[in-house]
Parts: sequence; structure tokens; C-alpha cells
Amino acid sequence: MSSRTCLAIVLAAGEGTRMKSSMPKVLHAIGGRPLIDHVLTAAIQAGGAEIAVVVGPDHGAVEKEAKRVAPQAAVFQQRERLGTAHAVLSARAAIAKGADDVLVMFGDTPLIRSETLAALREALAKGAAVAVLGFRPADPTGYGRLVMNGNELLAIREEKDASADERAIAFCNGGLMALAGAQALTILDRIGNANAKGEYYLTDAVAIARDMGLKTAAIETSEDDVRGINTKAQLAEAEAVLQKRLRLAAMDAGVTLVAPETVFLSADTKLGKDVVIEPNVVFGPGVTVEEGAVIRAFSHLEGARVGKGARVGPFARLRPGAVLGTDVHIGNFVEVKAATIEDGAKANHLAYIGDAHVGAASNIGAGTITCNYDGVAKHRTEIGKGTFIGSNSSLVAPVKIGDGAYVGSGSVVTQDVPADSLAIGRAKQTVKEGWVKRLREVQALGKNAAAEKP
Amino acid sequence: MSSRTCLAIVLAAGEGTRMKSSMPKVLHAIGGRPLIDHVLTAAIQAGGAEIAVVVGPDHGAVEKEAKRVAPQAAVFQQRERLGTAHAVLSARAAIAKGADDVLVMFGDTPLIRSETLAALREALAKGAAVAVLGFRPADPTGYGRLVMNGNELLAIREEKDASADERAIAFCNGGLMALAGAQALTILDRIGNANAKGEYYLTDAVAIARDMGLKTAAIETSEDDVRGINTKAQLAEAEAVLQKRLRLAAMDAGVTLVAPETVFLSADTKLGKDVVIEPNVVFGPGVTVEEGAVIRAFSHLEGARVGKGARVGPFARLRPGAVLGTDVHIGNFVEVKAATIEDGAKANHLAYIGDAHVGAASNIGAGTITCNYDGVAKHRTEIGKGTFIGSNSSLVAPVKIGDGAYVGSGSVVTQDVPADSLAIGRAKQTVKEGWVKRLREVQALGKNAAAEKP
Amino acid sequence: MSSRTCLAIVLAAGEGTRMKSSMPKVLHAIGGRPLIDHVLTAAIQAGGAEIAVVVGPDHGAVEKEAKRVAPQAAVFQQRERLGTAHAVLSARAAIAKGADDVLVMFGDTPLIRSETLAALREALAKGAAVAVLGFRPADPTGYGRLVMNGNELLAIREEKDASADERAIAFCNGGLMALAGAQALTILDRIGNANAKGEYYLTDAVAIARDMGLKTAAIETSEDDVRGINTKAQLAEAEAVLQKRLRLAAMDAGVTLVAPETVFLSADTKLGKDVVIEPNVVFGPGVTVEEGAVIRAFSHLEGARVGKGARVGPFARLRPGAVLGTDVHIGNFVEVKAATIEDGAKANHLAYIGDAHVGAASNIGAGTITCNYDGVAKHRTEIGKGTFIGSNSSLVAPVKIGDGAYVGSGSVVTQDVPADSLAIGRAKQTVKEGWVKRLREVQALGKNAAAEKP
Repeated sequence: MSSRTCLAIVLAAGEGTRMKSSMPKVLHAIGGRPLIDHVLTAAIQAGGAEIAVVVGPDHGAVEKEAKRVAPQAAVFQQRERLGTAHAVLSARAAIAKGADDVLVMFGDTPLIRSETLAALREALAKGAAVAVLGFRPADPTGYGRLVMNGNELLAIREEKDASADERAIAFCNGGLMALAGAQALTILDRIGNANAKGEYYLTDAVAIARDMGLKTAAIETSEDDVRGINTKAQLAEAEAVLQKRLRLAAMDAGVTLVAPETVFLSADTKLGKDVVIEPNVVFGPGVTVEEGAVIRAFSHLEGARVGKGARVGPFARLRPGAVLGTDVHIGNFVEVKAATIEDGAKANHLAYIGDAHVGAASNIGAGTITCNYDGVAKHRTEIGKGTFIGSNSSLVAPVKIGDGAYVGSGSVVTQDVPADSLAIGRAKQTVKEGWVKRLREVQALGKNAAAEKP
Repeated sequence: MSSRTCLAIVLAAGEGTRMKSSMPKVLHAIGGRPLIDHVLTAAIQAGGAEIAVVVGPDHGAVEKEAKRVAPQAAVFQQRERLGTAHAVLSARAAIAKGADDVLVMFGDTPLIRSETLAALREALAKGAAVAVLGFRPADPTGYGRLVMNGNELLAIREEKDASADERAIAFCNGGLMALAGAQALTILDRIGNANAKGEYYLTDAVAIARDMGLKTAAIETSEDDVRGINTKAQLAEAEAVLQKRLRLAAMDAGVTLVAPETVFLSADTKLGKDVVIEPNVVFGPGVTVEEGAVIRAFSHLEGARVGKGARVGPFARLRPGAVLGTDVHIGNFVEVKAATIEDGAKANHLAYIGDAHVGAASNIGAGTITCNYDGVAKHRTEIGKGTFIGSNSSLVAPVKIGDGAYVGSGSVVTQDVPADSLAIGRAKQTVKEGWVKRLREVQALGKNAAAEKP
Repeated sequence: MSSRTCLAIVLAAGEGTRMKSSMPKVLHAIGGRPLIDHVLTAAIQAGGAEIAVVVGPDHGAVEKEAKRVAPQAAVFQQRERLGTAHAVLSARAAIAKGADDVLVMFGDTPLIRSETLAALREALAKGAAVAVLGFRPADPTGYGRLVMNGNELLAIREEKDASADERAIAFCNGGLMALAGAQALTILDRIGNANAKGEYYLTDAVAIARDMGLKTAAIETSEDDVRGINTKAQLAEAEAVLQKRLRLAAMDAGVTLVAPETVFLSADTKLGKDVVIEPNVVFGPGVTVEEGAVIRAFSHLEGARVGKGARVGPFARLRPGAVLGTDVHIGNFVEVKAATIEDGAKANHLAYIGDAHVGAASNIGAGTITCNYDGVAKHRTEIGKGTFIGSNSSLVAPVKIGDGAYVGSGSVVTQDVPADSLAIGRAKQTVKEGWVKRLREVQALGKNAAAEKP
């Protein structure tokens, strides 16, 4: 990374009315994270030690989220929306501190990669006063065209002002810009609003810099990098691009995704070598899966850690705080929450394990439920190692099952069970011979069959 | 809408042998509705106050479905399959009633939109006696070409009769046709069968009208609008087109679809503003989700209503008659059927709530089951507000749990529970200390471990 | 099929380092089967009565898998990796046995179809000594070009040796080759290693055959047929191609796939006519679904048989040994394993049926669990016909429920239940009136609410 200092200004004041949402646009999420988080993360990774975020009025939630991700960020309010250059100048105090490079980014352009930002900064290091991102869209209609002379950017021409020759240019303005800190304020202050809408446009920085005899450059990147989000449909498209990137990165690292298009990853999902992910798996934030584990179809994981060689699913749900040791099996219709399951333990069918600790090699029978909530507070269930919890058991927390203990099927366990002991809590079976036969005879006579509850 | 009257004739007599199904083709479904339903709905929305449906012999099921959707429909039987014009004339009695516009539609072309039909009718209103739908397929091979002179349709040329120049025409016949009611029978009656197959072709209407000195027109539409279905693969393609339309419409209305390609909607799904749908959600018919609700991954909803701010899933199933109030939570592996869950109530894990009413702010514990069926009839479970139903409880209906009552975990409740009371129905726990240790010693001696059931 | 004899040599010695896996490349799976299985199956179907598999050192697992699929296969070890021709000659002993046709196939090219292999063999039957597979990739860069004269193959030109004219050739070498058995060894033995890498290249066989005055041919096939797998991303692409083929074949046979792109089939999945598969269904190996059955969304089936008209799911899991009779219903959050469910029986909600037999027309209530494991061994549950198993029951195996018997909800059944009898095993309900009210009063005083467990 360059030794030059860098300020990243993130413009996040847009209202986003086309999202048709009561939530500010940059707080909508892709990959399980708000849009602005992606932008801030890229800025920081590209060396943006200083961060300025420009928010709109009543955008306290945006400010809060920005500070959560980048506590060092200075937040500025743009009270009136008078154009992009005006928005940038809302952060005048940050620019005045004199970073070498000033990056202007957009809170609704979340797919920008730090390497692309680094390339923009590199252009400044090579002497440009202004460097913009260019891309080649499938259809350039509506975009500003970048008029180039070799590597030098001569002008950004808006479509309405472009000649026929210029309209034929396929290389378009992607919006993001880098300005040399030394000239940034001078350039920005010269931008005027003598145009149809009376707004201050950041793109004018190029013409002004050239008038000042400064160098201007354009760096080419992919359309995805500069993909802005204005509608829910565009939000979904950005999610799709991000998912493709995350899936490819996982496969490159040696993860087997049987049907990558059906696996949804979070930006922070960590998958070890030789992990196999079957179709239809959703990873919420905060999941780590270690080497050789298999996540079977229709599984849902959030805030969970899966140990080496473990098997999860199909139809398993791991919620935050689920920690599975080596070779643990969590099977169908099983939910694990805030629980550590030690090596080799199994819960294969229809169970809820919450606020619990399960010792190594224990077997949790089908239908077992840790009754962790008494209507007032949550309590813990401690299960020792090598235990056998019979099917359909209810473990009423707080309760401890000792090492090697055995709980009979269908038991309600309310008191601690000592090690190596058997606990049973169920009624004795009684049989009424011929009862159903007699019931049928009564029904045949037209009486109410349900009168006696069996 | 025009003040002209309109008869829509839906041809649904095809056998659909390429579907390889024992069900008539037009009863296969997309978007959760039979093909013919889509066609009838579009016809009605385009102002088709009169509907005639032409069915084949032994197509009682088609007739029944048509009358279910359009009770006003007159149904005609085409006894022999002698071509499209012959099929249309099976509805002679309906045409003779003298509607201004006669639309000829196909029961296996379900993606036709009412606005496209309106455009066809508009052509009649502007003086055309015959108006056909044209489209530009990626590959025109096999289609009849529309020979145009400006906006005027000169001829439909079948590929085998086309000159080299005509084969180069990209504009093709989409099949659907509108006829001016005043001339319709005259034109149709002149169609002959002097061709290789000896069939009466509706397309001949254009040449006949022109011979009569009448105006003929073609209206351009998309390939999807006129997509006919002959095979199961084409059925799946039509479903994909419909789903794309439904997903885009939802996003345009402000719904967040994280991964639209994994969400399956029904034609009647209603989703409020700021509703969030996670990946892998299936909506059967009859679902309404109110503002701000979140439907998490792997959820399945049919005939259900989800209140404002409610959270459903992951892995939840709402069946017909499920009505969730504001801020209700229905969690993983929970099924709700014919049950109203009042505001703020929760059933977060592994439960079956059927034929029930759950009062506001009640908490249904994990593994709770309403035992609504006694082998003969279904019974109701009434749960008051503010109750706490302990985990693994069985509520044997008919039964009432009073407001504020508490049911102990693992209880079988067969009798009503008064308000603010505690009900318990479970055996006392007993512990056999050292039982497992002794069992292991016995096993070590090679005896049968299963002899004594714990 | 030709009367000519055929030896198929499958090269499977590659290390597959780009897979970043500790498992040999050809053991990675698509369609639920290792890559090499697909290749061996195609070889056998194309008449390869003799099979030779060339494996690398330490590839015991590959040898084992090859012999499992093709017990007749002779396995040869290639100790050093000196090129494809060297690999083929590792199987010299097999070639020397004198089959008419020798097919050279690759263990990592699993999408090759037997009809393509048959076309290669046909070229030999027509007199060619060497026949190669050609294809037209979207981008030919990097591939060897096939220089043709009509149907005759003149040369394979590697890109680095190609003239500008030759580089413009779109027809490329797909790798697979057929050699006439009579000349195979002579040709292969003449291949030298006088090249940059010092390796023996199979492609040299073409030039050598032509030098010998023999005929050489190229057969065109699709890019998919010769798609080789070197990375996890390519593995996923091959899986996608295979799934597309399987889905189309199913639809062609009359199966309705509502959303084919969400249905994952195994190579051996058998689906009857008018079977309907809803979105998001995964078929592991060994599944048969009979006519008219419906597999609803989010279902997972492996090693299971589903009878006519049965309904499975949504959210159902059928594991190996699940056998469902006609019109059986298996509903949400139900797991069936090693169990036969006879005609018309139902298990609609939240149940585990394992190691069991359920008689016709029985009704298994919600939450029922067969407690088949006692911590030491698995035991069977036998349920008669026409029974009613109340909700939340635990059937502790080994146990028998007689025909027509009735088990009360919430019972733990440990002993056999005679026919037509009622079994109950649950505690009597007790009610503590006003208990909750008193609890709230105590809580209001700040005491510990959980002190008394309800």
C-alpha cells in the first residue's frame, strides 16, 4: 500500500425514494450487510485511514451504522441536496485536514472493490489531480462518455452535450472519483451551478482541473464495480453479483459447492478446505465451517461454528452461539442456539437445543427439547459426556445431566441426574383391551365418539 | 376501456398429447393456477364480458374449471378436430349474438396480458376487420410471416409458401386474433379446407377479409405474450416467465426479494411495502403479507395472512386459514393451519398449531402440539392471551386454556385450564442411581442389554 | 451395437491439485456419483466390454471405486506422469489382448455420452485407424485445432505451432480418442517425447497414423461432452450441465417440474408419468417415484420409493429404506428411514418413523417418534393397519401396535398393544388454580420466579 495518506468521502445523503421504503437506501443490505458497510469496508481496505460520511437530514440511523463499522468516521450532514459536488463539500472540514488522496465514493455503490480504489489512488500517485472510474456498459445510453487521449482523460461529456462521434464512445463515467488532496478544495470550490437544474456537479472537476493545467486520468473497471442501487430490483441484482463473487472465491479456495447458484453466503462466511455444501444452504452473518465438514441441503446457519468433519442437515438450523465440535452430527429439523456441542455428539432428528452444553459423544434422541425458558428468564441445560437422552424428552432448565447418564424416552426431567444414572419421568402404560372395538360399535349407533377423550 | 362489447372465444379443445399426461393440457398450472384460468382472467380484464370456451370431447374437467373462473362462460364442444377456424365456429351461437369485438384466444397461451388484448381491440375500433398479434422470435423458422405495408397487414404467409424475401421477414404470426363482430361469421364461414391436411385454418381470415375489401392489421407484442405450451419443458419455461413478471412487480412495489430467482409467487400473492422475503420461499395461492413483515428463508405459505411486522421462518409452514396478527413470530419447523394467532404471540420452534386460536402475547413452547384429530373428527384448541405453554406439551382438543394460564413442560392437557392457573400433566421423575453403570457391567458380560427397557 | 469388440481405457491418474482437495479428482461427484463412475458407465453402455483404468500412485481409493462400478475392470498404475500416451501405455497388457476398438477416455471428463462414444467407434468401423472427438468452443484459444479435409482429419495443430490460418479454425480437439486395436500398439509405441516438456502426447497418434498411410477422422460433438474438470468451479459447471440433461429428460418423459432449475436429480432418479415436483426438491441416489405422486417443495429424498398418488412434503425427508405405498401422505417436518408405510397411511406432521412398518390406512399423529435406538442397538416398531397413534407419542421399540389399535396422545408406549385396544401412558392432569397469579405477585416482590419449577 502506498505511503500516501487517504481520505475517503462516502456520499450517503440520497433519499432513495425509488426504493419505496421507509428505510434510508444505504441501510438496505446485500450479503447480510447494509450497503454502506460494503463501501466503508472497501474504503478502509484501500487505505482510507480517514473517513467522512455525508448523510441527509433525519439520517441518524445511517450515522449510527457508519460509526459502528468505522468508529473513526466523521459524519457530515448535507442539509440541502444541491448536487454531488455540494455533497462532497459538506465534508469540507475533513478535506481541509490535507490527506494526499481524496476518494469520493457513493453509499449506494457497494460492489466497489478495494483493488479498484487502489488503482484510482495509483493514478494520483502518478501525477493526476483528478482520476475517475470508467467502465464499458452493454448499453452506454444515458451515461457520460469519457473522451480519452491514450491514458489521458480529456473530458467527461454528458450524453445531451455529446456529438455523434462522442456518443459512439463505449467508455463511460462510473461516478467514483479520486482527487489530489493538494488541489481538491480549489477544484471543488470552482464548480458552479450554471446548468438547467442549478446543481453543483462533481463531474465538472475534470474540466476545471484541465483548465488549471492539471493532469486527469480514467481507470477502467467492470460494470459491477460501479453498479449503483436505486430500486429493489437493482438491490437484488447487486446481491446476485456479490453472491457470484463469494461463491467463486469459496470454490477457488477448495470448497465444493454442488449447486453454487443455490448457496447464499454472507460477506464474512469462512469455509475450510474440502468443505462440501449441498444445494440450498443459507449462511447468515458470522459463520465458520472447518475443514471437511459437510453442510447438507436446506440448512440455515447464522453466527455458528462448525467443527472439522461435522455433518449438518439436511433441514438443520444453527443459530447464533451454536458451536459444534469435531465430527458432531446435527440432523433434520434440529435447531441449535447458544449451545456448545462437543466432539462426536449427535442430535439427528427433530430437536431443540438452546442455552445448553452437550458433552462429547452424547446422543440426543429425536424430539428432545431443552425447556430453556420459563416465561420469565432463560436457563441453561448442562449435559455431560457420553450421555443418552431418550427420544421425546423434555429437559427443564436449569438442569444437569451427569456424564454417562441415561434419560428414558418421553421423560420430563426437572431435577439433576447424577452420572451413570437412569432418569425416568413418565407414566406407566395402561391398556384398555377392546376399547376401540367398543368405540366403533358405539359410533355405529350414532353416538358422539369424542365424548370420552382417550 | 372501450364502450364496444366484446366476446372472447377461448380454444381449449387440444389433446396436448406431447404433455404426456392424463390431464387435459389447459388444466396444467403455472403460478398455482391452471393455464386456462390465466387466459380467462386476461380476457375478462380486457373487457371480454362474454366468454365462450371451446372444449374437446371428454373435457368435463375443463368445462368445470372454466365455469369456476368465469361462471358466465358458455361452453361449446368441438367434436372433431378440423382446425382452428372449425374450433372457433363451434362457438357460432356465441358469435351470432353480435358482440362488437370477437377475440380468439388459446387456452394453452397463458402469458397473454390484458393490455395486449386491449391493443388488438383498439385496432378493430380503428377500422380493422381482422387484427392479429405479431412478434419477433429469436428464430423465425417455422412461423407464419406477417407481410406488412406500414401498419397494414397484407398477408400471413406460411413458411412453406413463402418466397426467399418473405422468409427474411422477422415479424411472425403469434396466433391470437381479433375479428370485427359484424363481419366475423361471414369471414369464418368462407374459410375452406382445400389444403394438404384438409383443415380449416383461422389464419385464412386475413386473406378473406382483404378479398372482401376490409382492413387488416397486426399489433406487435413480445414473444412471451404468445408463448404456447405443448410440452412439460414449455410449461416450465412459461412458469419461469410468469415468475419473473411477478417478482419484478413485487420489487417495483417496494418489496425486498433478497434472491428473487429463488422466490416462487402465486398470481394472487399480495405483499406489502417493506416486506422482506429471504431466499427460498414458496407462496401457494391466497397469501397476503402486510407491511414490514419478514418471511425468512425456506418458508412455505398457502392461504395465509401475515400481519404487520410479523416474522415467519426460517423453515415455517403456514397452511390455509393461518392468520397471524401484528408482530407475531412463527419460527423453525412450525406448522400453522386454520389458526388465528393474535398480536405479539410466538411459536418459535417445532410446533403444530391447527384448528386453534392463540391469544395475544402468548408463548407457545417448543414441541407443542394441538392434538386436533381424534381419529374421527377435528376439534378446536382455544388458548387465551398472555399464556405460557411449556415445551413438548400436548393440548388434546377440544380444550381451552384461560388467559394468563401456564402449562408445565411435557404436559398432556385434556381438560380446560382456568385463567391464571397452572396445569401440569406429567409423571414425577425418578432416578435409578448407578443404573447405567450396572448396565455396562452386564453388557460387558455379554448379556442382552435391551432386555430391560428404560 | 457393433459386433466389434471394444476396450475402454480410462485415464484417472491425474493429481487434480487445482481442486485443492485431499481427495483424488475423479472421486469428486456430480449427480451424486463420482466422476469416474460416469465415465465407466458411458464406456460400458457404448460396448466397452473390456475396461482398463489407469490410476496414479496412492490411488487405492480410485481403484476401489472403479472396481465397485466395473468389477471386470483391470487397473493399471502409472508410476510416473510422462504424458497421456505414456498413461495409455500403462495399460499395454490390456491393449495387447487385441480388442477391435480401443477408446481412450478421461476420468475427469464425466459428461461424455455413450452415443458420442458409439460415433467414435463407428468411425473406426468405417476404416479409420485413429478417430478423435472435435468440438467448437465459444473461444478456441488454447485448444489444439483440427485441420480437416472434408470428413478426413489431416492434423491436430497445437496453438503454439499453428499458422494464422490454422488459428482461425474453430474446430478443436476434445481429447477423447479411438484407435483401431490392430494398429493401436504400433502407433502408441512410435510416439516420442522430443518436445519442450519431454512428455509423450497422445495427440501425436494422428500424425503417426497418417505417416503410416492410415486413415484418421474427427467426429463432432458438443462442448459439454468433452468438458474436463480441473477446479471446483468446473465441477459445479459440470453438475449444472448434468442437472439440465436430467431435468429435460424427466420433462420429456411427462414429469412436471414446476421450477426445473431448483430440482436436483441423481443420475439414477426414476420418476413416473404425471409425477409433479414442486420447487426446491433434492433427490439423492436411489429414488423411485411412481405415477401421479406429488413431491412438494423443500423435500429431500434418498434411497426411497414413493408409491402411486402419494404426497410427500413440503419439508419431508425420506431416507434410505423408506418405502411408501399408494396414496401415502408424508407431511412437513417428517423423517422416514428404513420404514415401509403401507397404502393410504399418513404421517403429516413433525414425526420420526425409523426402523418401522406402518400398516395400511394408519394415522400417525403429529410429533410421534419411534424410539428405535436404546443407546446400544436399533429395534423395530411394528404398527398394524388402521391404527391411530395420538400426537406426541413415543413408541419405544421393540414394540408392536396391533391392527385397529389406538394410542392416546402424549403416551409413552413400551409394551405391545393388542389389536383394537386403547393404550395410554401419561400422567393425569392436575391444575393449581391461581398459581400464575400468585407467581406474579411474588415476582412483583422481587423474588426468584424460577425457584419453583412448574
